[in-house]
Amino acid sequence: MFLKYQAMPLALKHVFRVAASSKSIAHNFRVELHHDGLTGLGEAAPSRFYQEDANTVPIALEKIGAGLDLDPFLTQSRHAEIASRLAGNYAAKAAVDMAFYDWIGKRLNLPVWKYLGIDVHQRPLVTSYTIGIDTLERLPEKIAEASAYPILKIKLGTEYDFQIIEMIRSLTNKPIWVDANEGWQPAEAQEKINWLATQNVELVEQPLLAADIAGARWLRERVSLPLIADESVKTSQDLLPIHTAFDGINIKLMKCGGITEALRMIHGARAFGLKIMLGCFIESALGITAAAQLAPCCDYLDLDGALLLQDQPFEGVQFECGVLKFPNGPGLGVVPT
Amino acid sequence: MFLKYQAMPLALKHVFRVAASSKSIAHNFRVELHHDGLTGLGEAAPSRFYQEDANTVPIALEKIGAGLDLDPFLTQSRHAEIASRLAGNYAAKAAVDMAFYDWIGKRLNLPVWKYLGIDVHQRPLVTSYTIGIDTLERLPEKIAEASAYPILKIKLGTEYDFQIIEMIRSLTNKPIWVDANEGWQPAEAQEKINWLATQNVELVEQPLLAADIAGARWLRERVSLPLIADESVKTSQDLLPIHTAFDGINIKLMKCGGITEALRMIHGARAFGLKIMLGCFIESALGITAAAQLAPCCDYLDLDGALLLQDQPFEGVQFECGVLKFPNGPGLGVVPT
Repeated sequence: MFLKYQAMPLALKHVFRVAASSKSIAHNFRVELHHDGLTGLGEAAPSRFYQEDANTVPIALEKIGAGLDLDPFLTQSRHAEIASRLAGNYAAKAAVDMAFYDWIGKRLNLPVWKYLGIDVHQRPLVTSYTIGIDTLERLPEKIAEASAYPILKIKLGTEYDFQIIEMIRSLTNKPIWVDANEGWQPAEAQEKINWLATQNVELVEQPLLAADIAGARWLRERVSLPLIADESVKTSQDLLPIHTAFDGINIKLMKCGGITEALRMIHGARAFGLKIMLGCFIESALGITAAAQLAPCCDYLDLDGALLLQDQPFEGVQFECGVLKFPNGPGLGVVPT
Repeated sequence: MFLKYQAMPLALKHVFRVAASSKSIAHNFRVELHHDGLTGLGEAAPSRFYQEDANTVPIALEKIGAGLDLDPFLTQSRHAEIASRLAGNYAAKAAVDMAFYDWIGKRLNLPVWKYLGIDVHQRPLVTSYTIGIDTLERLPEKIAEASAYPILKIKLGTEYDFQIIEMIRSLTNKPIWVDANEGWQPAEAQEKINWLATQNVELVEQPLLAADIAGARWLRERVSLPLIADESVKTSQDLLPIHTAFDGINIKLMKCGGITEALRMIHGARAFGLKIMLGCFIESALGITAAAQLAPCCDYLDLDGALLLQDQPFEGVQFECGVLKFPNGPGLGVVPT
């Protein structure tokens, strides 16, 4: 059993801007788990916000891969073993975790979703399409690019948030999910969210700073839209502190460390009565397809990471008018293009 | 795909008495899931306390079995489908759920624990041995019967609780888990638990009435032993209301409806920071072995249900000085004797 990895920089169609940062290239990694004649594939999409980048991922993968010798099926003890080797580094861990699931599915000749007991064909699974922050002048072009997608996810946290939504509403009445990426102060958030509630906006993600749980609780009592925690929640251990401050959580494999932990978060969130959004970073179809295995367990899907890329190194889940179409192969069903 | 079932009455070695009831025979059922040339086995152990008995189980199984046509692998949607057919009836549902897992394991040629990603060989898994309520005169004989088991679970909730523990402590200093089965009033519980803490008692299960969550919260602030919720918690939906009133929960397949829901409870409980006991009703090795698949995910094991039986209709998990020994076969690995 051994790991291989290689840098897989992904160029974006447009510079992607959110409240506090922007990027034009995603420094992702492709990971391979070789064992017993089969290869499991995984992807790491590191984010500086979570203390990972193109330098940390190889170091983390070396630590995880050193003398790796586990029964690939024993997911729970593997998760504990890798956690004992290094803290944090969730994107690197997510790549390894999904590679193990890909391997298991290939060994059993089952899609990962079926191995996990999840039916991806029971209902249509629809993703939102994300519009990063841009000038008002360029918004119409962006909205036109999203024409096939029935739900828009709009990044806010600017001086001209009202104008962004007004501009979009002059073009389309599609449902909007707003993501402020920590961009607002509490009073500002209250004012903006109560106005957004009149604009066919369905939810607001991370209005305040990640650590401002008291502020989120204050805000939740003063607005009518559901509030979704993103930066405030990484793993299932973060649910207890925030469960009275938000209506739901955004689960991302790269934030939590993979499918194993994401399943814990799903069951945990349901026990707390929280809604679940399934999100992503800028990822190829490999990482997106791994996340999509869990889509039927979630309420809101934001799995458009690969749609923002110039080139597609992998073919996996595809989107028809925003509806996820799963590949037929075993494991993740993802193949290099 | 079809279900078969038959009554499987189990005679006990001794009349089994707890705070509010006693029984000398357990009216269990054996369930078979026939599909695609393989048979999955399950057991239902109905309890009147949870509104199930020898009359309700066949009715529930008929409802579940009528026109049953599901992909056995799609555990999550199967769970939802069966829940939509009937509420409650968790023992009947548990039998069907474990039969599906047995079928999946047999189809994949994997033990269920391996299919679930759980390593049952990583550490010794030790069960407690339960001593039901009896006269002080008969206690020494009962304690002698338990000589091979390193942990005693003692049922209390009598007029002579102090004498029971004093008698046991005159015979052995083994760790004791106490189960009051709702048998105490709050002030009585406070007094007894603080005394029990001086007697090498490690935890107390369900001291007060199941519905008295406020009482449990009051009590928890006044005692030093961990308090475990049993009758107060059936499924993962009960975690939120009780999580500040107890230190842990007792998960039983027959209470929650099977392995699928038990896994949700395990992940949910961990998110709440709760300890987990894995318990059972009076069950043959079939039901016990199904529960045992989850043992490594739990802190306290109370899986002695089959040890209290006169005869063993199935061979499955065995116990060597209280340590679980798993069978080698695929699925649950349980075979009729």
